[in-house]
Amino acid sequence: MKRQAKLSYLLGLLEIGAKDRMVKASTSFVSTLFRVSQQSSSRILSELQDMGYLEKEIREGVIWLKLTDRALDELISLKDDLERALKNPGVFEFEGRVFSGYREGAYYVSKRAYRKQFYRKLGFDPYPGTLNVRLEDPDLIRLNQRLRNLKGIHILGFEDVERSYGGVMTFKAKINDEVSGALIVATRTVYGPDVLEFIAPVYLREKLDLNDGERVRIKVYLTEPSG
Amino acid sequence: MKRQAKLSYLLGLLEIGAKDRMVKASTSFVSTLFRVSQQSSSRILSELQDMGYLEKEIREGVIWLKLTDRALDELISLKDDLERALKNPGVFEFEGRVFSGYREGAYYVSKRAYRKQFYRKLGFDPYPGTLNVRLEDPDLIRLNQRLRNLKGIHILGFEDVERSYGGVMTFKAKINDEVSGALIVATRTVYGPDVLEFIAPVYLREKLDLNDGERVRIKVYLTEPSG
Repeated sequence: MKRQAKLSYLLGLLEIGAKDRMVKASTSFVSTLFRVSQQSSSRILSELQDMGYLEKEIREGVIWLKLTDRALDELISLKDDLERALKNPGVFEFEGRVFSGYREGAYYVSKRAYRKQFYRKLGFDPYPGTLNVRLEDPDLIRLNQRLRNLKGIHILGFEDVERSYGGVMTFKAKINDEVSGALIVATRTVYGPDVLEFIAPVYLREKLDLNDGERVRIKVYLTEPSG
Repeated sequence: MKRQAKLSYLLGLLEIGAKDRMVKASTSFVSTLFRVSQQSSSRILSELQDMGYLEKEIREGVIWLKLTDRALDELISLKDDLERALKNPGVFEFEGRVFSGYREGAYYVSKRAYRKQFYRKLGFDPYPGTLNVRLEDPDLIRLNQRLRNLKGIHILGFEDVERSYGGVMTFKAKINDEVSGALIVATRTVYGPDVLEFIAPVYLREKLDLNDGERVRIKVYLTEPSG
């Protein structure tokens, strides 16, 4: 079952009230609700149950249904995605806290083959270091996973005499509405989706007077690069 | 293309900012966004354009895209549906103004074969007449269309010596949080989706002191009937 079809079925079940309690749902009722044949509706209900979206009970030969928390979470996420995208199309907004990472960013960012591409494709020569930001809000962590599925400005990998360096995806971004820079998502990153790595032409901790634990806001611009 | 898949593609395009302006979108960018092959993404874009959801321009060999108002309307509707269903699962809430209809309701409602079924399936003997309510909010008119696609408590048609009478769909409902009754949707109704017909065990214009043009609120309960 495709994700989109699934969400539409879950919405239908939510509409008839299968949120906080079991609702009675004959096959013919469900087939009207889903706008599919009675045969298909039985199959869909079984699939939804197997995927953990539905509690099903038979009482005196009649089916009763209730959505699981997992189903509700997905519907809420879809609503949030729509709200966010309608309010701020083309932009993902994050908020998180600065933390000190493994300091590997400085090493990578300062590699000449990367720097040349940053300059050409992002329009600036980055300060040799990344600002690490940890997301706490689960919705924002999910949003970052969504971001990682998108295609940003691609920085190619390369080899030097010692080793090879992987490709890096970047997205133009702005921190605290003040400094323009970019998010970088390394192909082989040590960080999970709860971490953003930001680069900028300036030393951000000094420029924005940032210490570990302080909150920052980051706006990421999603449209296809011109480069 | 299925409705659900379509909405997901439109959401993707909205997220990258194709709302208020043309955004650059290579086939590979779109295929990443839609999570389909490059071949499929071209076909999907053409279909969306044919359906009136997408403006497409080629500038110097590159595709630029923008969602149409129609596409945005559908995304906004989906968001509204989700919000409403999450806030008030199992209930559709309407608001509209009382108006005098063709007075045919009284004739039909008082037919004995209907009345017996109303009593058995809805639990009350309706006052011989319907209260007509006109919806003004386009969102509510759309919601009523959605309601008409659902399956309520079915009142069977019948024949008498003179003619045949069609089946009627009903939904338990409450008006102004005060009087319980039901909405009726005749199979062959003269009214469009901007009109609700409400029946109750009492004469509502008197009981609620209603005149033409006055506002009423109607809550419709959507779960499958026990009857």
